[in-house]
Amino acid sequence: MSGRASTGVPILRLGDVLITGLLNELDDKTAVAFTDDLTERISTDRARGVLIDISRLEIIDSFVARTLMDLTTMARLLGARVIVAGMRPPVAITLVELGIELVGVETALNAELGMTALGWHQSSQPPEGARHDAIR
Amino acid sequence: MSGRASTGVPILRLGDVLITGLLNELDDKTAVAFTDDLTERISTDRARGVLIDISRLEIIDSFVARTLMDLTTMARLLGARVIVAGMRPPVAITLVELGIELVGVETALNAELGMTALGWHQSSQPPEGARHDAIR
Repeated sequence: MSGRASTGVPILRLGDVLITGLLNELDDKTAVAFTDDLTERISTDRARGVLIDISRLEIIDSFVARTLMDLTTMARLLGARVIVAGMRPPVAITLVELGIELVGVETALNAELGMTALGWHQSSQPPEGARHDAIR
Repeated sequence: MSGRASTGVPILRLGDVLITGLLNELDDKTAVAFTDDLTERISTDRARGVLIDISRLEIIDSFVARTLMDLTTMARLLGARVIVAGMRPPVAITLVELGIELVGVETALNAELGMTALGWHQSSQPPEGARHDAIR
């Protein structure tokens, strides 16, 4: 499975959450491969949550919007919760103009808030003391 | 800057931590572009920590190893802390055989433990109640 990095979209696992990000140049073929990869990873990694950061996505078309909706439905069927984070205002405007409301897709203003919704929190103070580990 | 997605490597920001992952097919050109992207992002996003997941990296050569070391040094000069997470055993073996010990590069067994070191924690129970948000 590790050799299937065909999409070029890294998917990281943090606890029971998968985290990934879409780049701007998402074509239809990559979108389909990404859907395959992500649903397989949800299953093999027993993920309960998925964060998809789309802050780099500057334009969206109906196919990518459809992919996001399908992905959310598939993830829900697999028992995971998907949060789409960091949508740019022009993308939101385009979606409404296209008549695509992404019904059922949970969103967050940015990746940080999305991860908070999925149960991840950052301590108010990063562990400065641990910095000494970096210098050996 | 958002149009500079030339490396194909997404970099996500979670609080004051940048999180990214390397794919297996990292060539020299991509490695250099990635270094440029990441150092610029550390500066613009005022990041204090960087997590680089290399669990998809199945082979490593001296150039990529050198890139990781340089990146860590640059990040430290910018005031951020870099953790390289998820190194595969064959990669560790190759590094030692090459005589590259990644001195000064902080590592973690996986992305989750790396994020924990950077101050992120997942609640023991994901907020199940929030699931209702997903169904509107």
